[in-house]
Amino acid sequence: MKLVTINNTTSGSPGAMLASGEILHLAKAAKAGTLEAWIPGSVREILESGADGLAVVKKLVKRVEASSPAELTQLRETGALTGADTRLLTPVPNPRLIVAAGLAFKSHLAEMAGTPTPAKPTGFIKSVNSIVGSGASITVPPDASGHVDYEGELAVVFGKTCHRVSAADAMSHVAGYMAANDVSARDWVKDVWEAREAWPARLTWETNIMGKQFDTFTPMGPVLATADDIGDVTALEIVTRLNGKEMQKAPISDLIFTLAETIAYFSKWYTFQPGDILLTGTPAGVGVGRKPPVFMKAGDAIEIEVSGIGTLKNVLKAAA
Amino acid sequence: MKLVTINNTTSGSPGAMLASGEILHLAKAAKAGTLEAWIPGSVREILESGADGLAVVKKLVKRVEASSPAELTQLRETGALTGADTRLLTPVPNPRLIVAAGLAFKSHLAEMAGTPTPAKPTGFIKSVNSIVGSGASITVPPDASGHVDYEGELAVVFGKTCHRVSAADAMSHVAGYMAANDVSARDWVKDVWEAREAWPARLTWETNIMGKQFDTFTPMGPVLATADDIGDVTALEIVTRLNGKEMQKAPISDLIFTLAETIAYFSKWYTFQPGDILLTGTPAGVGVGRKPPVFMKAGDAIEIEVSGIGTLKNVLKAAA
Repeated sequence: MKLVTINNTTSGSPGAMLASGEILHLAKAAKAGTLEAWIPGSVREILESGADGLAVVKKLVKRVEASSPAELTQLRETGALTGADTRLLTPVPNPRLIVAAGLAFKSHLAEMAGTPTPAKPTGFIKSVNSIVGSGASITVPPDASGHVDYEGELAVVFGKTCHRVSAADAMSHVAGYMAANDVSARDWVKDVWEAREAWPARLTWETNIMGKQFDTFTPMGPVLATADDIGDVTALEIVTRLNGKEMQKAPISDLIFTLAETIAYFSKWYTFQPGDILLTGTPAGVGVGRKPPVFMKAGDAIEIEVSGIGTLKNVLKAAA
Repeated sequence: MKLVTINNTTSGSPGAMLASGEILHLAKAAKAGTLEAWIPGSVREILESGADGLAVVKKLVKRVEASSPAELTQLRETGALTGADTRLLTPVPNPRLIVAAGLAFKSHLAEMAGTPTPAKPTGFIKSVNSIVGSGASITVPPDASGHVDYEGELAVVFGKTCHRVSAADAMSHVAGYMAANDVSARDWVKDVWEAREAWPARLTWETNIMGKQFDTFTPMGPVLATADDIGDVTALEIVTRLNGKEMQKAPISDLIFTLAETIAYFSKWYTFQPGDILLTGTPAGVGVGRKPPVFMKAGDAIEIEVSGIGTLKNVLKAAA
């Protein structure tokens, strides 16, 4: 099942993308006299209800997909079913925590010359204000406009409270997956690389991470594909295209640490709640690692496709 | 005015601490037929209504404080006014962003030998899951139990959307202030200090910051004192007491960068919304800087007092 948040109010309404690409408005399609009437007003609240809640939503989606043409026409007339061009927000617009793993793909380390393989996962928090959905603009920050880079990533969305879990148990806490872009203003990367002494290196690293916090710098979507549909997540592939040209292409299996190991590690520090997000790192091919470097500018179109999930599309715009 | 969140439901109810120390439950005290009936169900929503909303709440508080003894008795009987021992949550239980400045006080740099004065503010995000109120326990993390340290701090709470503001305009975005404790598991500090080469220093610094993210590691409260009551914030003083013994004592005026400069700097990167929080750094006297070092253990009581605001009290407990 592919959950979405429909962009029809400030906070949006939960929906599902059907196999046809059409968007089902859950509340409008819910059948009175059944548990469907209880489906809450946000994807996060649906996730908070656990597997039982997801099962109710899934049953609704399957019922609609099996509807007769006349029933589908009625759903379209009432606005319960709208076209594939329906404007969406990011699937979970209100997570409380986004942790982003860095230096996670073998191929990305290889392109960042001189970067040793970390002995354990490494990562940092991203600001929730940086989230946007597919189709939204990425705003070029006025103070950091010359080195805006993409990082195509797989986003893990939690479905259960996840704290101090074992790697063996980690994946049972995952509700699903999204395509994500860990957009990064690289203005401070050169300083990171040139800092040969410990103190400047520490503080430059922190500034480097702050270059990922700007508003609109974490596009995620268009859909949240539930884990039961995905099967073996390591079989998925990330492809990044800048103005249609392929820039990154890698299987999730290229991760240094497995997703389960990464989730287990970060769960020692953080408590992930339903709807919270783990970005799992980017493979080779980022703009700053190219010779010569490639950066994004206003007007550029950036796409992150994760096989089996969908394609996240955003266009850059200059700050107003 | 001192705003609080009363611990009577999972998300709490907004209230105010009267001059007497008693707690006023805003919704229960609101007068029908006036704008008081519109006071929303959380401190964050009150802040989102801006100066106009705060004025309505302030008028209600003043009205109650000017009540006759008979009226006060009635408020107590209806549960609108409860004792100074009323259990509180943290004043803003649901911020979207907490940025914490580091290396901010001159005296703290001096005690951390070899730490150069930063040329600009430095800081990082704290997880919202780490928030608790005054009176709540601080849980010692099972995996990092031996080096749990305190950092008494002043917390700035935003009252208006704050992005790319000038230092001259910065303070007009502040709704008020709280006492805060940036609790830190220092297990990785030794590694930070001993890393003389750039790469290990970077990654150890990140781990060092992760040692501040554990659940219950950001106590804040007991009250949010509104800026109009505080006047010159640099005249305030932070005092930290561990089991009653004074460990930190410093005026806010010891900051390397003024609060206005610090807010303006971080607002270039982040967008602070009403209810979001900036922790402004800690002065000298932290446990890890002492010879010999002093760390906290289960049963210890830690207090952060900010003059004119209040005293944040927490007791450490072992993980269950």
